Amino acid sequence: MGEAALAVVKLGGSLLFEDEGSLKEGYVRGFLRELREYLAESNGRVVVVVGGGRYARNYIQLGRRLGVNEGVLDYLGILVSRLNAATMYAAFYNSPPLIPETLLDVHKLLASGLRVVFMGGLQPGQSTTTTAALVAESLNGSLIIATDVEGIYTDDPKRNPAATLMERVSVEELRRMFQREQVAGEYRMIDVLSLNVIQRSKVKVFVLKGDPPGNIFRALRGERVAGTFIEA
Amino acid sequence: MGEAALAVVKLGGSLLFEDEGSLKEGYVRGFLRELREYLAESNGRVVVVVGGGRYARNYIQLGRRLGVNEGVLDYLGILVSRLNAATMYAAFYNSPPLIPETLLDVHKLLASGLRVVFMGGLQPGQSTTTTAALVAESLNGSLIIATDVEGIYTDDPKRNPAATLMERVSVEELRRMFQREQVAGEYRMIDVLSLNVIQRSKVKVFVLKGDPPGNIFRALRGERVAGTFIEA
Amino acid sequence: MGEAALAVVKLGGSLLFEDEGSLKEGYVRGFLRELREYLAESNGRVVVVVGGGRYARNYIQLGRRLGVNEGVLDYLGILVSRLNAATMYAAFYNSPPLIPETLLDVHKLLASGLRVVFMGGLQPGQSTTTTAALVAESLNGSLIIATDVEGIYTDDPKRNPAATLMERVSVEELRRMFQREQVAGEYRMIDVLSLNVIQRSKVKVFVLKGDPPGNIFRALRGERVAGTFIEA
Amino acid sequence: MGEAALAVVKLGGSLLFEDEGSLKEGYVRGFLRELREYLAESNGRVVVVVGGGRYARNYIQLGRRLGVNEGVLDYLGILVSRLNAATMYAAFYNSPPLIPETLLDVHKLLASGLRVVFMGGLQPGQSTTTTAALVAESLNGSLIIATDVEGIYTDDPKRNPAATLMERVSVEELRRMFQREQVAGEYRMIDVLSLNVIQRSKVKVFVLKGDPPGNIFRALRGERVAGTFIEA
Amino acid sequence: MGEAALAVVKLGGSLLFEDEGSLKEGYVRGFLRELREYLAESNGRVVVVVGGGRYARNYIQLGRRLGVNEGVLDYLGILVSRLNAATMYAAFYNSPPLIPETLLDVHKLLASGLRVVFMGGLQPGQSTTTTAALVAESLNGSLIIATDVEGIYTDDPKRNPAATLMERVSVEELRRMFQREQVAGEYRMIDVLSLNVIQRSKVKVFVLKGDPPGNIFRALRGERVAGTFIEA
Amino acid sequence: MGEAALAVVKLGGSLLFEDEGSLKEGYVRGFLRELREYLAESNGRVVVVVGGGRYARNYIQLGRRLGVNEGVLDYLGILVSRLNAATMYAAFYNSPPLIPETLLDVHKLLASGLRVVFMGGLQPGQSTTTTAALVAESLNGSLIIATDVEGIYTDDPKRNPAATLMERVSVEELRRMFQREQVAGEYRMIDVLSLNVIQRSKVKVFVLKGDPPGNIFRALRGERVAGTFIEA
Repeated sequence: MGEAALAVVKLGGSLLFEDEGSLKEGYVRGFLRELREYLAESNGRVVVVVGGGRYARNYIQLGRRLGVNEGVLDYLGILVSRLNAATMYAAFYNSPPLIPETLLDVHKLLASGLRVVFMGGLQPGQSTTTTAALVAESLNGSLIIATDVEGIYTDDPKRNPAATLMERVSVEELRRMFQREQVAGEYRMIDVLSLNVIQRSKVKVFVLKGDPPGNIFRALRGERVAGTFIEA
Repeated sequence: MGEAALAVVKLGGSLLFEDEGSLKEGYVRGFLRELREYLAESNGRVVVVVGGGRYARNYIQLGRRLGVNEGVLDYLGILVSRLNAATMYAAFYNSPPLIPETLLDVHKLLASGLRVVFMGGLQPGQSTTTTAALVAESLNGSLIIATDVEGIYTDDPKRNPAATLMERVSVEELRRMFQREQVAGEYRMIDVLSLNVIQRSKVKVFVLKGDPPGNIFRALRGERVAGTFIEA
Repeated sequence: MGEAALAVVKLGGSLLFEDEGSLKEGYVRGFLRELREYLAESNGRVVVVVGGGRYARNYIQLGRRLGVNEGVLDYLGILVSRLNAATMYAAFYNSPPLIPETLLDVHKLLASGLRVVFMGGLQPGQSTTTTAALVAESLNGSLIIATDVEGIYTDDPKRNPAATLMERVSVEELRRMFQREQVAGEYRMIDVLSLNVIQRSKVKVFVLKGDPPGNIFRALRGERVAGTFIEA
Repeated sequence: MGEAALAVVKLGGSLLFEDEGSLKEGYVRGFLRELREYLAESNGRVVVVVGGGRYARNYIQLGRRLGVNEGVLDYLGILVSRLNAATMYAAFYNSPPLIPETLLDVHKLLASGLRVVFMGGLQPGQSTTTTAALVAESLNGSLIIATDVEGIYTDDPKRNPAATLMERVSVEELRRMFQREQVAGEYRMIDVLSLNVIQRSKVKVFVLKGDPPGNIFRALRGERVAGTFIEA
Repeated sequence: MGEAALAVVKLGGSLLFEDEGSLKEGYVRGFLRELREYLAESNGRVVVVVGGGRYARNYIQLGRRLGVNEGVLDYLGILVSRLNAATMYAAFYNSPPLIPETLLDVHKLLASGLRVVFMGGLQPGQSTTTTAALVAESLNGSLIIATDVEGIYTDDPKRNPAATLMERVSVEELRRMFQREQVAGEYRMIDVLSLNVIQRSKVKVFVLKGDPPGNIFRALRGERVAGTFIEA
Repeated sequence: MGEAALAVVKLGGSLLFEDEGSLKEGYVRGFLRELREYLAESNGRVVVVVGGGRYARNYIQLGRRLGVNEGVLDYLGILVSRLNAATMYAAFYNSPPLIPETLLDVHKLLASGLRVVFMGGLQPGQSTTTTAALVAESLNGSLIIATDVEGIYTDDPKRNPAATLMERVSVEELRRMFQREQVAGEYRMIDVLSLNVIQRSKVKVFVLKGDPPGNIFRALRGERVAGTFIEA
């Protein structure tokens, strides 16, 4: 991945949340410890993007039953994602959380000297991955998508044991895999809009297994880590 | 209670939340239905103040284990309370939630014509009841504290069957009951700072059982409802 | 289209801008006159969404030559679109322009009583049409896409004279037309993300020829106007 | 007091204001000179919290006579306190004053690199001391309460010559002194809510005589200064 | 003056402030009473612009002695003017004061339905009269300059008993009077920049004696009141 | 000019814009290159103030034809000037543009560590030069007015070949030249309000030819450059 001065790290829900929705204490503790080490020995800066998890789905399902439209339901999901970001901010900085609500806010916080920005979603109709891609693009930075599998496979490993981990895949190849509806679960993390942004700005994207969290920071240090490069 | 043009309604956690933390769908549905009826037949305006419930405590306990200080933990609790307010806003207005973060924001939303403002907490170190009292004071409005008991008793009815419901109680009498540590559970809802605000501005406060939610709006219409008047 | 209480009108660049980039005075004058008439005789409320036109492309091309990344170039385009919205606001209200920068801003302005909101883009990586679809979704309103052709054709009428105007087309059918790369020019106005939003929230969308501007307001009044309904 | 990296200094009204309400030029000059020296030789950061003084009381009394409610009167007092903070900011930085209006604002200014934040009040119903305690808590910093007496006495020295200065006093002991109404004047500076915040977060609080202002910065440098430690 | 739907009223310091700087209770009470009557019987809307008075000069002189530059001193004066505006807001609305800090803020408050906006200064280097002229221009409204004399005289009546009150004066004539340094005291209220704004937008300006305050509202109702029309 | 730690640079329209209104790519490229070099070898900080150019005049003329008042037309001009500032920001930082809208915003951005702030206008009724003078005053910084002529001449060199470049001119002398309407074209850049601000705060002002852009930074480095000092 090469020494990444400015990197965006999108933490997949499966890493971060217990089944009933709360943040996994152990994972958060480990992630923040590794983050502190990384910052202590590098001039790196990191934007951590997190989603809403089970709590978000609870609020969204309740809202849907109460007749709330999809755009506003997205909003509730965004508020939960920002609550999760605020909790990680609080645990990292131990001071009231400054959580961006627009792309400009991200840059104001970075311009003001914060080395780590924690954020959730920005706007309805947009996945957490697309948000992370837009932030990486605007920062001319790289993007690490940390999930619960080693990376992107030729096929869904849960259905096809012969599926192999791809070290590299192009955006076009990924689009074709989507259209052939061939991909399953673990590719849900990347949607069409994310691919558009990644492609138009040649964002360097690396998909890896985010547990143990050390993988993420080894990749940021430029060490060799199992995973998949998405090439614009 | 007399026809209340501008009223603040503080909904107690026990009314609003399931044990595991999510909003009680039935209660929210009933509350919003009664609210719409009340608004349709009156020129009343209502500020609904809600707390964080079990989810807030989950985030706070996690934060505490991760070494976060009490002031910042309060902040996380406030964010959950605003998420609950946003969900009720979304269910009522079916549009992206405008949730106040300062006392001035409450007045900006009212000044802009909103007839119902939904809000959570405002500042660390301050209970939801104190927040509701400050809002009522600034609005020269009345305050309804809706909880899971009929009102304030001479003693804790769960420990002393002879305890009787007080129709009226003075702020001074409540202070003395606090100092004698005589009060339990259901008086937790009113703390010293709330009493200061209620007393200095002679805020009209009525404590009642908020389930069924109709009780609240019958009180707002000036009908006779079981409960306790707190007299400044 | 049926009497539309709350409608979003997206004005296509071809209607609004001279070739060199400035706003077409005649079109703006006519549009605002029709808008005033519509408001005078209805309780309708309108959100007008405009793009950046040639000026935006000038700034974007200059920025690209100066090495600016795509996400930031989108930003410059958004600023031009907001400048165009501000000019129409100024011509309509004759007071300093209040132009939304987030979805929440749109709702704050509407909640404060403004009957017409003028806006440009909201976020990089997102077309003006997607912005209009997100606003319509959040408002539970309908969406009129005003362009320089009668609506959506079975094929590109400039290449295939046999192409006919479709009174109705489904989102799925439009998706297939996109994948077969069969559509040309005038369909550029609707992209994949817009279709996602339109579909998930069953937004009522009507594509029509926006010149003369009277067409738009006749459609809003529920009169019969040539054009294409997009059915979620 | 030990080398305080991040400290909150609450300047008592008696130090800061002439009788008729304006800021004491001599004291402000001396305070800022000592502050500059302290910053020059340490990596310390300071939040200075000031009140409204006589001018605030003038505006509040006028407002009360014009029928304004207590919560809004508090607001006017807060605006005067922020005016005093702005004047000290202007004298220190010689640039337009950036004065926080919420707890989050304090952290935004500190996060942006300001080494000294000047502030007044935050919210009605809350003393300047409570504000200072909440800021100190959120910063995990220490709190110096600078007043016109050496510290906290066993009794009111103006009434009881035998009263002695307490080097240490516990929050519980202070609460009991309050309830016995035994304390007078100079203890007005600490109220119940401040004690709650100090206790729950074990904020290190030192009460000292703030004139000459050098005392404050000697305490911040960890030198021995007469005064009273409040132990949570 | 003709029925003024939207009017800006600039209250001169001599009307509003006691010598030592606080607001004249009697004048404020009278002004607000007349304002309420005017609003009750008309659909008029008023922007009241006030200055800083003696308190502002106290803060500015202190700041100057502490080495603060003129631009920042202007800022302190602006903060005092906003404090005075906030006090009148509180007395009129009895709710936390919403005071504009930019021209756009004025329009946001008016757009949100407020019928009376109270404001102080907007920007250093600009007199309260110029601020009032800019607001009137942006509102296409009229401007009443209420001062302690009947209007504008051919010469300074305190030096030249033969000086007569001018019913009408042109902006050009006023400019010449300025250049001949012939004007004194009571013309200080109008400076070169105000005249530029008045002239370029043909703002209707009426200078009158603001005590009793009834004069102002009689002029707004279109009744005949002694004073001077400034003609662009 | 002496080593200028904090300088404001006002770039004249004639330097910056092509005739049809777009930014001159060559000039912008050269200016930013020189700016980077200057920053690399000094601890200087620069506020770059730009105007609206031809595009602004297009929008303003269109608005005027559509009946928009002068104050609001100024606003449209300000929005174009901020768009130009945003484009230079994007080219310099390659991240979403943070453009100030008030004087306080300028200081927030500088306080947050930005070494270069790009800005357009702040308020209607105020020239770009006055804006630059107000910013320089508030920063206690110097002001460079970069235009398309060597500086200020005894007379208009286009009409009077005998006119000579003045190395120094006083504010009073400039005022007299204005009143005698003797000055033409290139003095338009300084108006009465700018002179007031320059004079009252003794802002160091240097007028020079801004093409090649190297002149500007040679002056900032304290090297000898042809131009005119305006002495307060």
